[in-house]
Amino acid sequence: MATLPTSDRLLLGPGPSPVSARVMQALAAPARSHLDPDVLDLLDDVRGMLGRVFQAPDGNLSIAVSGTGTAAMDAAAMNLIEPGMTVLAIVTGYFGERLAQVFARSGAYVERLHVEWGRSVDPALVERALIDARFDVVAMVHGETSTGVRNPVEAIAPIVRRREALFVVDAVTSLGTIPVDVSAWDADIVYACGQKGLGAPPGLSPITVSPRARHASPTCHSYACDFDLLEAFWVRRQYHHTISSPLVYALHTALTELFEEGLEARWARHQAAHDALVAGLAGVGLELFADPPHRLISLNAVRIPPGLDEKAVRARLLTTHGIEIGAGLGPLAGRIWRIGLMGSGATLANVDRVVSALAEALGRKRPK
Amino acid sequence: MATLPTSDRLLLGPGPSPVSARVMQALAAPARSHLDPDVLDLLDDVRGMLGRVFQAPDGNLSIAVSGTGTAAMDAAAMNLIEPGMTVLAIVTGYFGERLAQVFARSGAYVERLHVEWGRSVDPALVERALIDARFDVVAMVHGETSTGVRNPVEAIAPIVRRREALFVVDAVTSLGTIPVDVSAWDADIVYACGQKGLGAPPGLSPITVSPRARHASPTCHSYACDFDLLEAFWVRRQYHHTISSPLVYALHTALTELFEEGLEARWARHQAAHDALVAGLAGVGLELFADPPHRLISLNAVRIPPGLDEKAVRARLLTTHGIEIGAGLGPLAGRIWRIGLMGSGATLANVDRVVSALAEALGRKRPK
Repeated sequence: MATLPTSDRLLLGPGPSPVSARVMQALAAPARSHLDPDVLDLLDDVRGMLGRVFQAPDGNLSIAVSGTGTAAMDAAAMNLIEPGMTVLAIVTGYFGERLAQVFARSGAYVERLHVEWGRSVDPALVERALIDARFDVVAMVHGETSTGVRNPVEAIAPIVRRREALFVVDAVTSLGTIPVDVSAWDADIVYACGQKGLGAPPGLSPITVSPRARHASPTCHSYACDFDLLEAFWVRRQYHHTISSPLVYALHTALTELFEEGLEARWARHQAAHDALVAGLAGVGLELFADPPHRLISLNAVRIPPGLDEKAVRARLLTTHGIEIGAGLGPLAGRIWRIGLMGSGATLANVDRVVSALAEALGRKRPK
Repeated sequence: MATLPTSDRLLLGPGPSPVSARVMQALAAPARSHLDPDVLDLLDDVRGMLGRVFQAPDGNLSIAVSGTGTAAMDAAAMNLIEPGMTVLAIVTGYFGERLAQVFARSGAYVERLHVEWGRSVDPALVERALIDARFDVVAMVHGETSTGVRNPVEAIAPIVRRREALFVVDAVTSLGTIPVDVSAWDADIVYACGQKGLGAPPGLSPITVSPRARHASPTCHSYACDFDLLEAFWVRRQYHHTISSPLVYALHTALTELFEEGLEARWARHQAAHDALVAGLAGVGLELFADPPHRLISLNAVRIPPGLDEKAVRARLLTTHGIEIGAGLGPLAGRIWRIGLMGSGATLANVDRVVSALAEALGRKRPK
């Protein structure tokens, strides 16, 4: 039988990100049932704070799905799609492709707008696609975790709105690290996860839903993810499912920390950590995969120097330095590492640790 | 802003049940990512222990879904049903009805075998229904949490098998408290939750799936709950979703505790707690809703004496005694309370506490 880990590990992969001591402590608060007044009061706060972190309109339903970001992605599709509806999925990497597959599973006809991995989507291509054919839904990923690219959601949003399609945005790796502005985007469903920019452990995944999306809803294939039933629980306090009180405590505490810091200060901290990482990596001869204007600052895809045993480097970071970084996914396996600087992990001290560790593992010297 | 609870509460409702100090401590072990070797090794153990607690054949896939019992119920239906398949749903209470609805959402034609709430299903009626019409799937609840009734799965299983239907059993409130024998039942999908008989917090929900059910699978509407993708992660260690390491630690620890006690000893402890509760309640003039031969020992439905302000009694238990018991659901609201004695909560000391608290709240004297 394996034993629970006892040593700390610095989580600088694509997520989960490090959880602060205060959030960890929250997990251990006395457990309550899902219908306990104490839990229901905390959920009211969580709804309010999620609305603010999403910058969502007051009329939106802003809650968290009991499950991971993939469950939130499922929820978006299953609450929106009736068989035969058409979806334009913008695919700029692994998670855009996953989004396309998720919508297809719900019975939608999905057309993919493919973009080369490592590039962001050109809004003009989206406009072209929406002129060529009518789509009920446009779905895209804001921060593509597989490539370290940020897609220009703000430029695409008005195009989608003019064509009167519903707009679904995956903010799994962007929420809490860079501006996510659901009101300005006039987006219909935007979802994320707890364990990246928000600094909570995995298990509760935020989602915000517009009244327009609520009205469009057919019967949801899932009972657990049905927005009407979730609203009945979160808002009208009717039994639906057994939300996990330790996870509620942790998410409540993580969001409290976020607003103590302030959204703007948090974004600035993530930018500063990213800038320091780029400079530090350059000092040891490493460069980023994505081009500067569309880099996702929270998730840094780093080109692996040719001829390197990249697994050995990651293993050395893990075992000798206690640092986790991520491998490449799909066609980028072996070609990039993924270094996440998210939530409480986005600090200059962590940048220093990971750059030093990489320099050591690669046998390169860091400039003073 | 609400604050996290600081006082302990004795959770004797329909679940979540009390979590032991050791399981609570496990939540706080250093976090790891979903692909960390430490986590993957723990998941191997969890698979093995789940197979044993379900008493499932070696060929079964025994894992836990990231979500609550309702997500596991969804997973059962969404991995099994193609539109037009026929399901016989045995409905002996609220959760049987939920099961019927979940299968209907997946596109099945669902016929309900209705049984009066408070009674268990008569196997002869199931046989009759399966002679009258052909069903692809028979779905039922083992321990009906809304009525405190245990259905005779062991007597129904061979009937279902003879008719060559797939057999789905909800063991949410029975697993870990009374025998659940997936091998003997030759059942195809049996699922549960973490937070009742197993003594873990909510958020990971065990499920075991037969090879027969795996072969029958159409495309699953859900990406998060797709058995093929879940197997790829749990067994072949391929990325699928970000399982929550604190919840993995807690479930691993809860299952370890369960096997330290032993399955037989655990069932006996639950029986002893139930017997003591029945005797204690009788002493203050309270009786159970379900008839003795089919009582679910882990979840005791107690008749509310006529003319009582039952909400005031529950509120008094909660605020004065720090004990949560459950209200009735649906047609049983106001007619029963639900007292759960599950996991580490199934002790004679807890029985004593809840009976004394009820006696005080009702103004009745306990016999010496």
